[in-house]
Amino acid sequence: MFTQPTPIVDRQIATKNIYRMVELCTQNDVIFRPHFKTHQSAEIADWFAKAGVNRCAVSSMSMGEYFFEHGWIDICVAIPVNLNELETANRLAEKARLSLTVDHPLSLLAIKQQVKNPLTIFIEIDTGYGRSGVFYKNTQQIDALLSILTEARHLRFGGFLSHTGNNYGAANRAMGQEQFAQAREIMAWLKETYAEQYPNLLISMGDTPSSAFASHFQGIDEWRPGNFVFNDLMQLELKSCEETDLAFRVRCPVIGVYPHRNEIVIYGGAVHLSKDSMVFADRKVFGWAVMPGGKIADGFPVISLSQEHGIILANESFVRQIQPGDWLEILPVHSCLSADLCGYFHTTDGEKISKFRTYPNL
Amino acid sequence: MFTQPTPIVDRQIATKNIYRMVELCTQNDVIFRPHFKTHQSAEIADWFAKAGVNRCAVSSMSMGEYFFEHGWIDICVAIPVNLNELETANRLAEKARLSLTVDHPLSLLAIKQQVKNPLTIFIEIDTGYGRSGVFYKNTQQIDALLSILTEARHLRFGGFLSHTGNNYGAANRAMGQEQFAQAREIMAWLKETYAEQYPNLLISMGDTPSSAFASHFQGIDEWRPGNFVFNDLMQLELKSCEETDLAFRVRCPVIGVYPHRNEIVIYGGAVHLSKDSMVFADRKVFGWAVMPGGKIADGFPVISLSQEHGIILANESFVRQIQPGDWLEILPVHSCLSADLCGYFHTTDGEKISKFRTYPNL
Repeated sequence: MFTQPTPIVDRQIATKNIYRMVELCTQNDVIFRPHFKTHQSAEIADWFAKAGVNRCAVSSMSMGEYFFEHGWIDICVAIPVNLNELETANRLAEKARLSLTVDHPLSLLAIKQQVKNPLTIFIEIDTGYGRSGVFYKNTQQIDALLSILTEARHLRFGGFLSHTGNNYGAANRAMGQEQFAQAREIMAWLKETYAEQYPNLLISMGDTPSSAFASHFQGIDEWRPGNFVFNDLMQLELKSCEETDLAFRVRCPVIGVYPHRNEIVIYGGAVHLSKDSMVFADRKVFGWAVMPGGKIADGFPVISLSQEHGIILANESFVRQIQPGDWLEILPVHSCLSADLCGYFHTTDGEKISKFRTYPNL
Repeated sequence: MFTQPTPIVDRQIATKNIYRMVELCTQNDVIFRPHFKTHQSAEIADWFAKAGVNRCAVSSMSMGEYFFEHGWIDICVAIPVNLNELETANRLAEKARLSLTVDHPLSLLAIKQQVKNPLTIFIEIDTGYGRSGVFYKNTQQIDALLSILTEARHLRFGGFLSHTGNNYGAANRAMGQEQFAQAREIMAWLKETYAEQYPNLLISMGDTPSSAFASHFQGIDEWRPGNFVFNDLMQLELKSCEETDLAFRVRCPVIGVYPHRNEIVIYGGAVHLSKDSMVFADRKVFGWAVMPGGKIADGFPVISLSQEHGIILANESFVRQIQPGDWLEILPVHSCLSADLCGYFHTTDGEKISKFRTYPNL
């Protein structure tokens, strides 16, 4: 059936991952707004809808448009607004319940002037990750943004949003827990500070590792993780998932077997898996190769990726079993980036499902 | 005109790069077979055709099909054959002058049995890079492959092919020169060894750094570089191109400005640039940000990439000039991987041109 590297999604596992996160949010009384940047697929979004989810976060305006076209109404573009796309935002805001994210007064002024349809604005807060957002101590800038918002009748202040991406760098569970607890405290403090003036403001946070690290969600109103639907080696290393929670893999044909160096080469490279790497079992790896349906313990690291070649460092007995033309399955380091490369997914049910493309075809 | 991250190809520079490589090959009396994996675009391939080029190398069977559909007849799939695509190979070989690459006897036996149309076979040689190919000292395996070839009437032995990819790791020009010279000597020795039996065998080598490192091409018959059409920061660091030879950049909107840490955030992440990094001016960088049309000396490193965010570490005066909504141009570390992500290119002439996709849309 397959002839080339093929992205495989295990629908049962992904669905289980979705339901588990729905339950976590229900138990902790937070709104669940999954980030759809991981799968970018209307069909997989439907699996969320079946679990009762009716909100999503996206990482670009065009991804927001894609999910709107596929029936999603309540969409948060959880990246500082791109002012070159305000026409799209205006068009989308006419029909969707659109939230935009801002951290810069000039961006908010441009939105105020150019977007005529009602819109929710989240102020992004940098709790220490240092990517985007107003640094949390800079209440002067927060106040400047709020005063622009107050003057704009069609703009509604949604609340404060942050992404604790530094959690991905957590050396261990204790450090991850501490980082999350600090970020949560900062956001809870902001809520307290502004609650009197804005009683309806929401605190929106969330990422997959913190879903596991969090001992409680006090002060948080909305939870926005993304990766958990597929998980990957990085989540496994952070112990925010189990091996049985890995829902995405890339099935690749073997094209070379090199017994003198115990290596196997697959047709499967950076254009299939992405060049993201991690240290796993004391080695820099670009993925983990297993037999179809096989276990990590019986698999071997992908130690090098070029454009279309992947090198797997195996052992004598494994290399002896493998021939050119065989198939191996690669568990990616970072499923979001591997999945982004795909133009479709195959499900383990035998379905072929479509997805959004960052760059459309001409 | 542009609203989102936009891949820009400078047609004048790319054309100049093509003509320069044509001239290098002419001067050194080697056949020029450019690798099209860098641009993957039928239109850019036409620029090669206008320079008199009528052969190409590709890195997958489907990329070969794409270029065949766009008028290319003489196509070498320069990666060990994927036995799951022999039907495609057979179909392609019916009309194209197709060359396949093998390094494993079982692969060659499968080709012999399943491909009925005439085909040229190159034996890939590993001269020390350690990716794919028969290790050059293993003449027993080379002989085994040749004896299978001799028995197959429809298969023609094209010669020995290798890729000196270790050149990308060369610490300096002298080391690169030495690595290339060693690889060339190995291939020339193979030619001598097998020339009596196979007087028409070709030695096919070639990569962009070696095009600059080579002091001569003695023993080489065919040259297969790819990256030179665009070049990138990696080539610049290896001194195999000049800044004025960089033909590909990604124009990205600014979405965040953070004066307290002298950082700028663009809407432009790993899904636009790829996660490839390098050490440039003593720092790990994922790209180099310049003002549109600006120079590297006036630009700043992209020090972090997440899915859709890129962080640029600038200085006070640069950060002061920049506002959300502005555009910066990112020179990628590795243009092959950045370009692979795109569904199209914009040319500096204002044309929008199409390209092959690794994963087609559904």
